[in-house]
Amino acid sequence: MDPMLVIERQAEQTDSRILLLVMDGLGDLPREGDGHTPLSAATKPNLDRLAAEGCCGRFDPVGPGITPGSGPGHLGLFGYDPTEYEIGRGVLSAVGVDFPLGDGDVAARFNFCTLDAAGNVTDRRAGRIPTDENVRLVAKLREIKPPAGFELFVETESEHRGVLIVRGPGLGARLADTDSQHTGVPPLPVRALDAASAGTAQIVAAFVAQAHRILAGEAKANGMLLRGFDSLPSIPSMQQRFRLRPVCIAGYPMYRGLARLVGMEVPPPPADLQAFPGAVTAHLAGHDFVFVHVKYTDKAGEDGDFERKRQVVEEVDRLLPDLMAAGFDAVVVTADHSTPVPFKAHSWHPVPGLLWSPGRAFRDGVTTFSEQACIGGALGRMPLRQLIAEAMACAGKVAKFGA
Amino acid sequence: MDPMLVIERQAEQTDSRILLLVMDGLGDLPREGDGHTPLSAATKPNLDRLAAEGCCGRFDPVGPGITPGSGPGHLGLFGYDPTEYEIGRGVLSAVGVDFPLGDGDVAARFNFCTLDAAGNVTDRRAGRIPTDENVRLVAKLREIKPPAGFELFVETESEHRGVLIVRGPGLGARLADTDSQHTGVPPLPVRALDAASAGTAQIVAAFVAQAHRILAGEAKANGMLLRGFDSLPSIPSMQQRFRLRPVCIAGYPMYRGLARLVGMEVPPPPADLQAFPGAVTAHLAGHDFVFVHVKYTDKAGEDGDFERKRQVVEEVDRLLPDLMAAGFDAVVVTADHSTPVPFKAHSWHPVPGLLWSPGRAFRDGVTTFSEQACIGGALGRMPLRQLIAEAMACAGKVAKFGA
Repeated sequence: MDPMLVIERQAEQTDSRILLLVMDGLGDLPREGDGHTPLSAATKPNLDRLAAEGCCGRFDPVGPGITPGSGPGHLGLFGYDPTEYEIGRGVLSAVGVDFPLGDGDVAARFNFCTLDAAGNVTDRRAGRIPTDENVRLVAKLREIKPPAGFELFVETESEHRGVLIVRGPGLGARLADTDSQHTGVPPLPVRALDAASAGTAQIVAAFVAQAHRILAGEAKANGMLLRGFDSLPSIPSMQQRFRLRPVCIAGYPMYRGLARLVGMEVPPPPADLQAFPGAVTAHLAGHDFVFVHVKYTDKAGEDGDFERKRQVVEEVDRLLPDLMAAGFDAVVVTADHSTPVPFKAHSWHPVPGLLWSPGRAFRDGVTTFSEQACIGGALGRMPLRQLIAEAMACAGKVAKFGA
Repeated sequence: MDPMLVIERQAEQTDSRILLLVMDGLGDLPREGDGHTPLSAATKPNLDRLAAEGCCGRFDPVGPGITPGSGPGHLGLFGYDPTEYEIGRGVLSAVGVDFPLGDGDVAARFNFCTLDAAGNVTDRRAGRIPTDENVRLVAKLREIKPPAGFELFVETESEHRGVLIVRGPGLGARLADTDSQHTGVPPLPVRALDAASAGTAQIVAAFVAQAHRILAGEAKANGMLLRGFDSLPSIPSMQQRFRLRPVCIAGYPMYRGLARLVGMEVPPPPADLQAFPGAVTAHLAGHDFVFVHVKYTDKAGEDGDFERKRQVVEEVDRLLPDLMAAGFDAVVVTADHSTPVPFKAHSWHPVPGLLWSPGRAFRDGVTTFSEQACIGGALGRMPLRQLIAEAMACAGKVAKFGA
């Protein structure tokens, strides 16, 4: 049996508190020369103290060799098997613009694209039009009328990216992408992949046809490509599974959306990083699990900016005492995936992590928090989804199994 | 879900190349006194350089405490769960003598044995008769006529060991061993374990009866014991599972046979170890995964010869630059199982392994390739079958999972 099912069975609600501090994309590779990663190069006395007083390890978000998207990475952090609950691109985009997706809604990510006179795609991203142009076009598309009894929502993400949501009775989400991922060919027709989705396909096809008429005069964004049709997955909440009462402090909509999917309470985003500690304290009442998400490490990794990634770590380090000021029984600091600076993209490398819980976490002799130091940590290398079990145990939230 | 199923789903065919260099039975135990293993004692600048530039770890071929045979060890190396695909002794013996086993053929390993006047087994190995005597007896047994529509093949392995293959329509492979593993009792009768194998049992029983008549005058090898009846397992190929185009460079038939079972192309064996690099280069066209199998480490382990095992490592090390000369994006060096010198046999100890892939594999600070140094490696301790996933990721053959 999966040991996490034992955790579910033995979980006990207590007043003890867990802080899960996630630095998105934190994991990195040693650079040539001095062998430093942004994390190992950072001056971070507070993180190093937690590592020294607690234990470290490395964690596979999905499994060895598997590069996770943001969805799977966060499911792992929250104790879920990312291969068991897949979250479609459309759903992730919808929650990523803070759209209040309901059960049965069908969401798809779309790109504005450029079509030539023959109707073939010449640019899948419509020359990466600026976001305000996207907003202008989305306002036009919102005038498209759905069939009676249904609703259509069109939302801007950024640049050429947006989300389409269909709401109404009896929808199915098994629709094929209309984005062939190729140029020189027309968009694929809207096509249902099962009988239950045939009606949805009709609604979406009518929308796309009308959208193409509306966009016909545009120089760049005269077409649309849709992909990742999906509905909200049915995920048991962290409350149901682990008897936790979780709250999410995050600045970015996608992570707040992911937190909502597992039943977290999600207050409005803090104004900036400096406002995170205040938000943690303000929303602690009634909660025993605080998920704090810092996006900027990942952004620096995606930009290939070693120095900025290092600086974000240092900034988070300075905030750490205030983030912990309310008092926690167990603190986890880790990442949802690695975003190595030389890759400028997510990677499969296990993420470094530390677990601090005085007198409870095994003090393993690791005295600094880095990818390299974590290799020798007491937590070893394990699936990311099991890290929450160690934290819950340290916080006294897992009863003895068996007599 | 097993993460390897994610690897299957996300696998992409690319031009990048992986070299899997297997030193059979490489893993060993530190000896008394200086604590060296043959691997750690070897002078091996090239292997040490790969370890220093890449990352190391230890790998369980089947699982902790489980001593694998050659079949399970290699299935693990090739990314298969050895507990999911069992390869019977008969099939392993058949492929081990390069017999072109077809679907539906039933193969059994046999021993020549010694029977007393009462028909009881007195020596299960017929005094380990020399191989040329085996060849002489096999020639006699080949005169036995199968029933119409069927074929019988009798093949020498070595000493007292051989293989019987039955070919024809509608055979079943569920036959009980006739080798009771005891002396002082007669061989067990040929017995079908299911209805589908009843016809096969009749054919084999008739063969054995006639063989015993033919062998009756022999001083030592006057009987036969059969075990490990099996047919070719249905194993999805590495091409199907991982979109790899694998080729096998191996000197020993059993390993070429195992490679064929997972769909590898298997050119003729190189004349000797010195000919391996040339063979790798010669057969690279059209392939992106090269499995190189070196047997001699295992043979030295089986002989309990520390010095010879060390020397084989050094010889392989000298060949390494030439083996890699064609250019590889990821190189794995590891073993199918441990064969510790003091054991003179396979053991359950995890095997050491290294993964080299500049800029892609995490450089973990391990600077030498040995069982001891691998304990501190970034790959940690993991199931052997997941090592291929790490190599595929380094070679850019695994797409991101999830949005």
